[in-house]
Amino acid sequence: MRIAVLGGDGFVGWPTVLHLSDLGHEVHILDNLSRRWIDTELGVQSLTPMDSIQERCRIWKEVTGRALQFHLLDLAREYERLRGWLAEYRPDAIIHFAEQRAAPYSMKSDRHKVYTVNNNTNATHNLLAAMVESGIDAHLVHLGTMGVYGYSSVGAAIPEGYLDVEIENLEGEKKDLEILYPTRPGSVYHMTKSLDQILFQFYAQNDGLRITDLHQGIVWGTHTDQTRRHEQLINRFDYDGDYGTVLNRFLIQAAIDYPLTVHGSGGQTRAFIHIQDSVRCIELALADAPAAGERVKIFNQMTETHRVRDLAEMVAGITGARVAYLPNPRKEADENDLVVKNDQFLALGLNPTTLQEGLLGEVVDVARKYAHRIDRSRVPAVSAWTKDIARRVERDPEGKALKSVS
Amino acid sequence: MRIAVLGGDGFVGWPTVLHLSDLGHEVHILDNLSRRWIDTELGVQSLTPMDSIQERCRIWKEVTGRALQFHLLDLAREYERLRGWLAEYRPDAIIHFAEQRAAPYSMKSDRHKVYTVNNNTNATHNLLAAMVESGIDAHLVHLGTMGVYGYSSVGAAIPEGYLDVEIENLEGEKKDLEILYPTRPGSVYHMTKSLDQILFQFYAQNDGLRITDLHQGIVWGTHTDQTRRHEQLINRFDYDGDYGTVLNRFLIQAAIDYPLTVHGSGGQTRAFIHIQDSVRCIELALADAPAAGERVKIFNQMTETHRVRDLAEMVAGITGARVAYLPNPRKEADENDLVVKNDQFLALGLNPTTLQEGLLGEVVDVARKYAHRIDRSRVPAVSAWTKDIARRVERDPEGKALKSVS
Repeated sequence: MRIAVLGGDGFVGWPTVLHLSDLGHEVHILDNLSRRWIDTELGVQSLTPMDSIQERCRIWKEVTGRALQFHLLDLAREYERLRGWLAEYRPDAIIHFAEQRAAPYSMKSDRHKVYTVNNNTNATHNLLAAMVESGIDAHLVHLGTMGVYGYSSVGAAIPEGYLDVEIENLEGEKKDLEILYPTRPGSVYHMTKSLDQILFQFYAQNDGLRITDLHQGIVWGTHTDQTRRHEQLINRFDYDGDYGTVLNRFLIQAAIDYPLTVHGSGGQTRAFIHIQDSVRCIELALADAPAAGERVKIFNQMTETHRVRDLAEMVAGITGARVAYLPNPRKEADENDLVVKNDQFLALGLNPTTLQEGLLGEVVDVARKYAHRIDRSRVPAVSAWTKDIARRVERDPEGKALKSVS
Repeated sequence: MRIAVLGGDGFVGWPTVLHLSDLGHEVHILDNLSRRWIDTELGVQSLTPMDSIQERCRIWKEVTGRALQFHLLDLAREYERLRGWLAEYRPDAIIHFAEQRAAPYSMKSDRHKVYTVNNNTNATHNLLAAMVESGIDAHLVHLGTMGVYGYSSVGAAIPEGYLDVEIENLEGEKKDLEILYPTRPGSVYHMTKSLDQILFQFYAQNDGLRITDLHQGIVWGTHTDQTRRHEQLINRFDYDGDYGTVLNRFLIQAAIDYPLTVHGSGGQTRAFIHIQDSVRCIELALADAPAAGERVKIFNQMTETHRVRDLAEMVAGITGARVAYLPNPRKEADENDLVVKNDQFLALGLNPTTLQEGLLGEVVDVARKYAHRIDRSRVPAVSAWTKDIARRVERDPEGKALKSVS
């Protein structure tokens, strides 16, 4: 297949590119390299030393003999070029990662909110409009997030995309209606993924576009079978307060003898998936495209759920690190249950990597190995969800009002 | 109150401005005048001769002694100026009409789709972000549309914004959950209003913004008590295939002896409201603001429902016009029922103008009076929802495959 990976320079994009190339597909990377620019803006860098995308592609060719093509293109701002590219290359499948993906970054300031909505919504919609206009029949696979559902629900298991509800019709009879599972996003970033869902529903219905939306959990881990093949193919690893996801941050904190920072009670339950499973899921989703005219296919892309404080204790157990409870800069429930259905990927043959087996390797092979590259000043999470919360955190940055270090 | 009317130069915006000014409020118009630019793009003009917004404001001052302030500002593209304006003027209420509002225009081409999503989504989101950032406590009243719900449902009465559904929790108990009534928009334009709903839900929840969303039916009629006061205060009246709404188009067609063009079987049922009731509803909604932290208040802003072919027959009955059935350029169900709850506005004292009482006046005072200004070539509706439909309409523009002229 000819596959376009939009955002193929990013944290999940890059290993996806390699995984699909390794399977023998012709892979094209379309990226505006905005994630590298944001590193520059924030003054942070990947823990793992990361070469330019052009250099990475060169190395992959050298190691495997397989070519990757990189195209510098801004989906949100270059509609005409995007349409032209699609019309010329006519990909069979498009994997769409090309969105600003950090909730804390999206809540940093009004400028960051405006950027995130503008970038993400226009990127997705431009892509859909260009697919229709160029008349290609590509399967679109989009990376969404479990976070669209929020985490303060009635505690029901989250199904895969749809919910059957009963509605009383005009004759007073009960009728079943299938609806998109209602979203309640908790950040501007998550909100944009909720908007995407509406865009997909419309273009599948009006234009028969074939779309799969993957509602992904928090991705952890660094290496995949392909990124291991050469030091310069290594994946990025973010540990800063904005882009670092919770588990990666704990690993780093342990490696530099920084307390593992749990925000609030740590009773928030989240869904997780290892990067290796993430790229495998994309392979499985690609092979299971909906037909034209079918509703959007939605998968929950996650393999296990954990409370944040339990993760901290797990990492502390392996590394001997201590755990610190800090004020929560997010507006969210202190405690929540989370049960997620992922039957579809399991049925398609996904065989998950568990935290239990993968965690120690991350500590040794990544966190300790690159510990000398860590900038301690970038570890705290400082983006607050509202001005009130910002003031509260500022008054008590060490969370003295909470129970202290455990 | 100090009230900002965003999009105050438009079809419902302008009479709202006058209505609120007449009630004694200090009214500011913020508008980028895009609707006038689109007239230029399409080569169409309002049936009623329309002065510049500056001249209209001058006339209103002359007639009533009341000042209106006009500010040229592009919500979607000038975030910083918008935030600055809000911080300086600190309005008590904001009425938000500032979106591209024609479904056919939004489906004209990929450029029009991209423009509509970019403009509408950024306009609404910029406004929300700027309200939070400037720290004002204004009540936001937004003009949405009944069309977010689509028209091919199970035939249930459409409630005002929310739906109670039953969800099974982890213990297997049935629990009630209130969700936004699920949307299924039928055009890119309607889709943007569905996106707006998600934006409102988030900002009400995260930042405590006080928001009312009015899901309006199709507006008909021209005059309000205020626009009648001077010839130069007259409201705009669109009759072209993109911006003309169905009833206004029938009136014009009758006035120039053009057949009343029904698309498809005319079995589509739509919700309607007179422009006078529309501005009254906004007054009522303003006086009934939600509290901070409350969910978004949603009203259905309509007063009656009719099938399109029945409207055509009604206008034909008054005027002697004939009715022509043409192929439908839209992708929609040929026939649908529609029952809409509007209990909230009735309870607040709305006393609807019925088609029965208002229609003849429109025929005489508007359609016949300005018939000499009609450009017949602009009457056909040519924007097709998909390329397939466009080809079908092109092959059979007069709908010979359908039953012919009645």
